[in-house]
Amino acid sequence: MRYITFGEIMLRLNPEGYERFLQADEFVATYAGAEANVAVSLANYGAEAYFVTKVPAHEIGQAAVNSLRRYGVGTQFMARGGDRLGIYFVEKGASQRASKVIYDRAHSAIAEADAADFNWDEIFKDGGWFHFTGITPALSDSLAAICLEALKQAKAHGMTVSCDLNYRSKLWSREKAKAVMSELAKYVDVCIANEEDAADVFGIHAANTDITEGKLSHEGYKSVAKQLADTFGFKYVAFTLRESLSASDNNWAAMLYDGTNFCISPKYAVHIVDRVGGGDSFGGALIYALGNGYSTQDAINFAAAASCLKHSIEGDFNLVSLKEVQTLAAGNASGRVVR
Amino acid sequence: MRYITFGEIMLRLNPEGYERFLQADEFVATYAGAEANVAVSLANYGAEAYFVTKVPAHEIGQAAVNSLRRYGVGTQFMARGGDRLGIYFVEKGASQRASKVIYDRAHSAIAEADAADFNWDEIFKDGGWFHFTGITPALSDSLAAICLEALKQAKAHGMTVSCDLNYRSKLWSREKAKAVMSELAKYVDVCIANEEDAADVFGIHAANTDITEGKLSHEGYKSVAKQLADTFGFKYVAFTLRESLSASDNNWAAMLYDGTNFCISPKYAVHIVDRVGGGDSFGGALIYALGNGYSTQDAINFAAAASCLKHSIEGDFNLVSLKEVQTLAAGNASGRVVR
Amino acid sequence: MRYITFGEIMLRLNPEGYERFLQADEFVATYAGAEANVAVSLANYGAEAYFVTKVPAHEIGQAAVNSLRRYGVGTQFMARGGDRLGIYFVEKGASQRASKVIYDRAHSAIAEADAADFNWDEIFKDGGWFHFTGITPALSDSLAAICLEALKQAKAHGMTVSCDLNYRSKLWSREKAKAVMSELAKYVDVCIANEEDAADVFGIHAANTDITEGKLSHEGYKSVAKQLADTFGFKYVAFTLRESLSASDNNWAAMLYDGTNFCISPKYAVHIVDRVGGGDSFGGALIYALGNGYSTQDAINFAAAASCLKHSIEGDFNLVSLKEVQTLAAGNASGRVVR
Amino acid sequence: MRYITFGEIMLRLNPEGYERFLQADEFVATYAGAEANVAVSLANYGAEAYFVTKVPAHEIGQAAVNSLRRYGVGTQFMARGGDRLGIYFVEKGASQRASKVIYDRAHSAIAEADAADFNWDEIFKDGGWFHFTGITPALSDSLAAICLEALKQAKAHGMTVSCDLNYRSKLWSREKAKAVMSELAKYVDVCIANEEDAADVFGIHAANTDITEGKLSHEGYKSVAKQLADTFGFKYVAFTLRESLSASDNNWAAMLYDGTNFCISPKYAVHIVDRVGGGDSFGGALIYALGNGYSTQDAINFAAAASCLKHSIEGDFNLVSLKEVQTLAAGNASGRVVR
Amino acid sequence: MRYITFGEIMLRLNPEGYERFLQADEFVATYAGAEANVAVSLANYGAEAYFVTKVPAHEIGQAAVNSLRRYGVGTQFMARGGDRLGIYFVEKGASQRASKVIYDRAHSAIAEADAADFNWDEIFKDGGWFHFTGITPALSDSLAAICLEALKQAKAHGMTVSCDLNYRSKLWSREKAKAVMSELAKYVDVCIANEEDAADVFGIHAANTDITEGKLSHEGYKSVAKQLADTFGFKYVAFTLRESLSASDNNWAAMLYDGTNFCISPKYAVHIVDRVGGGDSFGGALIYALGNGYSTQDAINFAAAASCLKHSIEGDFNLVSLKEVQTLAAGNASGRVVR
Amino acid sequence: MRYITFGEIMLRLNPEGYERFLQADEFVATYAGAEANVAVSLANYGAEAYFVTKVPAHEIGQAAVNSLRRYGVGTQFMARGGDRLGIYFVEKGASQRASKVIYDRAHSAIAEADAADFNWDEIFKDGGWFHFTGITPALSDSLAAICLEALKQAKAHGMTVSCDLNYRSKLWSREKAKAVMSELAKYVDVCIANEEDAADVFGIHAANTDITEGKLSHEGYKSVAKQLADTFGFKYVAFTLRESLSASDNNWAAMLYDGTNFCISPKYAVHIVDRVGGGDSFGGALIYALGNGYSTQDAINFAAAASCLKHSIEGDFNLVSLKEVQTLAAGNASGRVVR
Repeated sequence: MRYITFGEIMLRLNPEGYERFLQADEFVATYAGAEANVAVSLANYGAEAYFVTKVPAHEIGQAAVNSLRRYGVGTQFMARGGDRLGIYFVEKGASQRASKVIYDRAHSAIAEADAADFNWDEIFKDGGWFHFTGITPALSDSLAAICLEALKQAKAHGMTVSCDLNYRSKLWSREKAKAVMSELAKYVDVCIANEEDAADVFGIHAANTDITEGKLSHEGYKSVAKQLADTFGFKYVAFTLRESLSASDNNWAAMLYDGTNFCISPKYAVHIVDRVGGGDSFGGALIYALGNGYSTQDAINFAAAASCLKHSIEGDFNLVSLKEVQTLAAGNASGRVVR
Repeated sequence: MRYITFGEIMLRLNPEGYERFLQADEFVATYAGAEANVAVSLANYGAEAYFVTKVPAHEIGQAAVNSLRRYGVGTQFMARGGDRLGIYFVEKGASQRASKVIYDRAHSAIAEADAADFNWDEIFKDGGWFHFTGITPALSDSLAAICLEALKQAKAHGMTVSCDLNYRSKLWSREKAKAVMSELAKYVDVCIANEEDAADVFGIHAANTDITEGKLSHEGYKSVAKQLADTFGFKYVAFTLRESLSASDNNWAAMLYDGTNFCISPKYAVHIVDRVGGGDSFGGALIYALGNGYSTQDAINFAAAASCLKHSIEGDFNLVSLKEVQTLAAGNASGRVVR
Repeated sequence: MRYITFGEIMLRLNPEGYERFLQADEFVATYAGAEANVAVSLANYGAEAYFVTKVPAHEIGQAAVNSLRRYGVGTQFMARGGDRLGIYFVEKGASQRASKVIYDRAHSAIAEADAADFNWDEIFKDGGWFHFTGITPALSDSLAAICLEALKQAKAHGMTVSCDLNYRSKLWSREKAKAVMSELAKYVDVCIANEEDAADVFGIHAANTDITEGKLSHEGYKSVAKQLADTFGFKYVAFTLRESLSASDNNWAAMLYDGTNFCISPKYAVHIVDRVGGGDSFGGALIYALGNGYSTQDAINFAAAASCLKHSIEGDFNLVSLKEVQTLAAGNASGRVVR
Repeated sequence: MRYITFGEIMLRLNPEGYERFLQADEFVATYAGAEANVAVSLANYGAEAYFVTKVPAHEIGQAAVNSLRRYGVGTQFMARGGDRLGIYFVEKGASQRASKVIYDRAHSAIAEADAADFNWDEIFKDGGWFHFTGITPALSDSLAAICLEALKQAKAHGMTVSCDLNYRSKLWSREKAKAVMSELAKYVDVCIANEEDAADVFGIHAANTDITEGKLSHEGYKSVAKQLADTFGFKYVAFTLRESLSASDNNWAAMLYDGTNFCISPKYAVHIVDRVGGGDSFGGALIYALGNGYSTQDAINFAAAASCLKHSIEGDFNLVSLKEVQTLAAGNASGRVVR
Repeated sequence: MRYITFGEIMLRLNPEGYERFLQADEFVATYAGAEANVAVSLANYGAEAYFVTKVPAHEIGQAAVNSLRRYGVGTQFMARGGDRLGIYFVEKGASQRASKVIYDRAHSAIAEADAADFNWDEIFKDGGWFHFTGITPALSDSLAAICLEALKQAKAHGMTVSCDLNYRSKLWSREKAKAVMSELAKYVDVCIANEEDAADVFGIHAANTDITEGKLSHEGYKSVAKQLADTFGFKYVAFTLRESLSASDNNWAAMLYDGTNFCISPKYAVHIVDRVGGGDSFGGALIYALGNGYSTQDAINFAAAASCLKHSIEGDFNLVSLKEVQTLAAGNASGRVVR
Repeated sequence: MRYITFGEIMLRLNPEGYERFLQADEFVATYAGAEANVAVSLANYGAEAYFVTKVPAHEIGQAAVNSLRRYGVGTQFMARGGDRLGIYFVEKGASQRASKVIYDRAHSAIAEADAADFNWDEIFKDGGWFHFTGITPALSDSLAAICLEALKQAKAHGMTVSCDLNYRSKLWSREKAKAVMSELAKYVDVCIANEEDAADVFGIHAANTDITEGKLSHEGYKSVAKQLADTFGFKYVAFTLRESLSASDNNWAAMLYDGTNFCISPKYAVHIVDRVGGGDSFGGALIYALGNGYSTQDAINFAAAASCLKHSIEGDFNLVSLKEVQTLAAGNASGRVVR
């Protein structure tokens, strides 16, 4: 089955190790984005994954393309042109010092793309699965319109559609997010969200949860999941459940609601190497699991294990193999040396 | 208000990451020193800070100057000349392996400076705050005399004076430290110390405290603070309270006595990136807070939060902003990504 | 006393920091091997240590030799020739992600060495201590034969012999290991093993122990130690007792049986920098302690402390000094800065 | 005397060494810009230099500020705000492979600055020297208007004005450049240009010169210099004379016309380390020389020597001392070790 | 048109910069091989290129695959399995110090591949161009047999066949090379060689040429080309003409004989960044040019320009674009900055 | 034969690549010194070499020891103690920008060593060759006295003595150098000097030579060599003949006078990687050649070739093999890849 993801890929620049922006005289350069990260996860598990975007026709744009090809993601549907590749700067936190992200993504090729850049009928001709996140329509009005068109075509081709809400307050207001996403949500089968997204985008709240305190109420999430499914007709609603103890240590678990059952994964105490992309790695693994017919419990366990592992990997991409995820999902979290 | 600090700036050389000295084929090169670190903290918070020292008239000396200018510290009162810049080598510990510091600071330009190098009347002409530590008079007899002269002039200009006891057994004996510091202490308004300094320098002990065990008695510290204030007439006495669990993990808190109240900060469990300069970052933040009229409790909370954050930053300088310290002091220690 | 160790030295290639193999565009290059690591430990403590092996007569082989000379290991008994130096790739794990080792050691100069390469009578002419591990005879049949010859000569020269069982399933089957090692064990005075080796090599099991759960039964180990001593006549049997909480955090302790007493070391909670070579560092320290007449309890405490420290050091070699190990063995685990 | 320069400072990102963009997984990060580079040169020679621009109020903007403070450039007249810092990517060429620059500077804080951001009356209150380049007005129409206003004010404060034509075809057409620059040129005393600028901006050609052939006609340049001076009333016209033999080797000289004499510097055969910023280093040194009353011949010799040295230095900034330039200008080009 | 290349891909390890093997504590890790390098060149020019080999089913093998995917080479015909990936160590020379290569390629997955690993009928089903070099059959007898089978199938599918003689004395004797290559040569249309290959492999000598003197006789090469074409029926014979002045500076040109004309390219004076892969980059460009119908003179000019540029690029792969090669082939060798 | 060298070993710190001191945030750390460099050369050629010095008893001192052991130099005669290891900072020049060395060597352990630190009778008990340079007696008066004592003992043990004049104006005046060295020269058999030393130390001038112009008169050097031999009774006088074209390119040759013949080596055009240690590599190779009975012409050719190669190697140590030097001395300077 083909998995098509659509969104932005950016140049990610981060100082080495725990250096602050003000200390950096080198930036580690990788290329990433919420939907591109999902595509890489799918390709890593052996799935036929494609990423659709627009990048400028210069070497920095090409380097973004190459970073996807390297991990087996199909790039033949990408458009070329526009002025610039979006950039974001990441500073890794530690202990009580929070990680910091500075976005410089306005005016990117994909934000200024137009409908003619993408031939959805061609891209979707073999059907399969389509994935996007709330970031894509937030980038520009034209991109919101392109998203809507893509969703309609995806449904016309009988595809399953997943969406990670991924609310970004720097990109749009809650009001605008709600208006746009409520329309797009109609075409979505699988809704993915973190602990804040449902409230930010749709105004649906998990009661009794204070995320800055690192406490999460399962009951609250169940309530939110049910409201979302009831409101928009989602077949699945998935939540990542992060407890932030510090920038170095988090607890991590996830929940999946299939309309009937609320399945909760084991909780992992993670010592963080790089947590950016954690949510995307969850989405990628969940899509793989659901696309391959896993049960609700197996799917959420697989997705939680995959995204747990992401926290131990530098960069946004979750460079883990199917076997590594399965081993952890099966309960081996001892970290013993594999020789 | 002008904040003038006086002391030594050295070239700090440390192997990368957790490499040992014997493995290093590169040293990370920064420039730092107890009083220079305080000046950088003050400049980071937006204060008008100056650092006074003497550096050799070659490129290594100039690089030390530039490292301060970079962070906004005024360097116009520095003397040039002498033979060498002091150097210290730092090896980062981990888990049960302790960090190690090798000093190579003898015969430095500042240790061999003479009175004519500094025109205190000019330097202090706008008044403000003067800060030094117990390291400066320990470097040489002539420097001890210069310190005394500076203190007299500071008082003549109506300045507030702070001193971090900072006892270094490699530089002088406890006997000599007591003799010299007892004289200098007469001019000090704010006395800063860590868990060992009061005993080392003045023979004043905190009862029931075994620092290698990582246990600290608050009552003991109160007793010491009161003795210090009573003996030397300090307006404020501040202690950092470190519990060393291992080279990777410490607990960190602080206490401030204002002659009436003993205010204790929250205690932070810190996962250490680099703890060198932790005490200096405490001093810098405390001076800022007191210089800006914070209450005793607010001041110690601000200083404890600032120095907690220092432990997460590579190098001696505490490169945090006013806002970051305020956020932590206000209670947000979750380390969640700031986007 | 001379300490002679015999085995393979390989080129170790590991990505920097927590990078995965798939991300690496540079490999940190060191040279190491189970018996070479022991020799370096011994030299670090001031003992007269030699490493015997065969390396190819090119610069990569010479670099392996130099890495040992650098730390004071005698290399004059090494043979030169053969086609290649063995290589192994190490990927450092973190949190739930396990470390990974890929071996590329077949056809190495040492695996293809023949009896004429080593003049044991000359090498052993001053007596002393001989150490090898179960890896050496596993490399090839000819090397197993050379081992046997070396052991006979060692005994003829009145040497003490130690062996770390070090079972490697990639090199030989349990059946073959048992057959070969049972013969070699007859010449061994000190047997060293980790939590799995005794079962893998000799089929002797520690009851009630599930190493993937990180739980260890002291009683079980005592039983195994006694069986080993009874079966093969070992004077000492030593076990490392690792509890794998995750790839980042382990508990670490050790046990030594001297035919009468079962002495158990303190248990250390280690935050891991690099755990490869941990077992070898234990062996090196134990040999040093026994070779210098430490009591059973002192010996196991010294060896446990030394190998605890190894986990905080990059690379296989345990670059700690005698004094550092003694300090930790004496109970100072606070990790406070040594100035 | 105060030297005020006005323009853009950008984040410069270049792969390490001779890596191509497509190979880079790290970028060396420095901050630079045509006019900022001039300010750094002036500060290096001991002059009182200021740089005026607008940078965003985040850490990347602050890092740009710090990079100037580090080298002694005054930054107190900078405005804060706007969305982004301009970026450019530099790939170092070698031999027949040309260096490559990709600009990502649209929508920068300075390009979108408005008149209220700069209080020229305050900035110029002590008079001195004002410098800008043709890049500044090319960035946006509003910036062209701000430039014009600055020039008027500079003249009102009796300042000397210099301008490096610095034509950038990616920023504006030759037609627009000519229209805008012809107006601004009226206020300029010292005009600096490279081998192509006069033709690109004003349509004034140096006869018999084919720059891709690396051949330069001195007679042609004299003719152009005279035309420029006659047309716009420049007191000085300076040209850099580059002969591009390859990306690794260039010949470098310069010419200065003072209305009477055409003075030509010695020609240097330069083996290139980094040639970006070469023209700016020429401008900075020329301004210093003229501002300090050097004769026409001495001024051009100083400026040619300074910019010759720039080619041996990584990054845009010409980090050479007054003494180093004077030594080369005096004829010592042997490159012998200075101990 | 599909371009299929067949051979070995290895892990290339080289110290950074000009470090010697004995100094290296890090190796830059890339993946390359004579035929893989050709495939990358073809993909860079926009051609549909595939590389066929066998790599082990572990992460180091996968990293080799990824390095090709990254640059757009098709990898779907690769076999997985076997024990190891071949490795070679490269030390970069400078001035009078020669570069050095140490091979560790025996027992690689591809050397031990068997006929069943490759389904040539499937691989060649769309026809096109097939390329191999003299290294492939030299790796093992079975690989020589596989080559012969591939050549027969290629001809059966109407493909054009090219071969770079690439004699490696470490892999086989001249006698064996002659025997095997004489048989394979029958299927070859385009023969590529450097200044020594024809003599080494077929005993055909270019008169009056002493390559260590850096002097090349064009007449001698014409004679050799004609002999080769006459003997084996090659349609094209191409030679690279290298004059080694030192490890830092070479002259570089090339000749192409089409049975009628001897076309010689311009000669380039190259300042070397990395010359490994220079011959392969020539082959890749020549194949592209001939495959796209270039005239003999245009083809050799394109190939000489492409391989001239390779010398300025780190690593084996010639990461240049079609446009860059065309610009140099058109005569622009000035190396001026492209903005 | 034993080769004993005596002098200082320092920590060498240099910025990476062509970075200037002011840009460096890392220093490459190696350990070197004029006489230590000679010892490493001798060990590289397979000779039994020892280095005698005094280093502090801390890890930085130990790292210096290890750097010599790594390359096979015997270190058992070193004394431990004193306060510090000397340091020097090296900045690599390029093109017209000269390399720069800043020394920070005062008060080192060796400069403050006393006679009791070295048991010359024991050190020299097997006779052989003793080498020192003019730097050693320049470090302190006590070291000059120790040198004299060593020379007397060396002669008493029948050793050959060589001395590189190595004048350092930062360490002593010409007058003092002349006084001390004239006394020590009486014990010297082989005198080594560069183009300036004879004049600086003994006031003996090479007529018609302007070293800053890069022109050298062979006749002048012959005259100086004869004067030196006649005055002090040297059996051999050797000169290195450097022509400094720029910091990147030098010509390099050498001359050896044996009392009868003036033998001059071929002249090499060297493209410089790192020229520090060039003279020491000459001395080391010359000593090896004379110690192994080479003819005067062969000896100077060997020494010139060895030191030519040094210019292509990073760091002070001349890490070349006997075979590599012999190959170049035999005339192969083509720099072709050695596979």
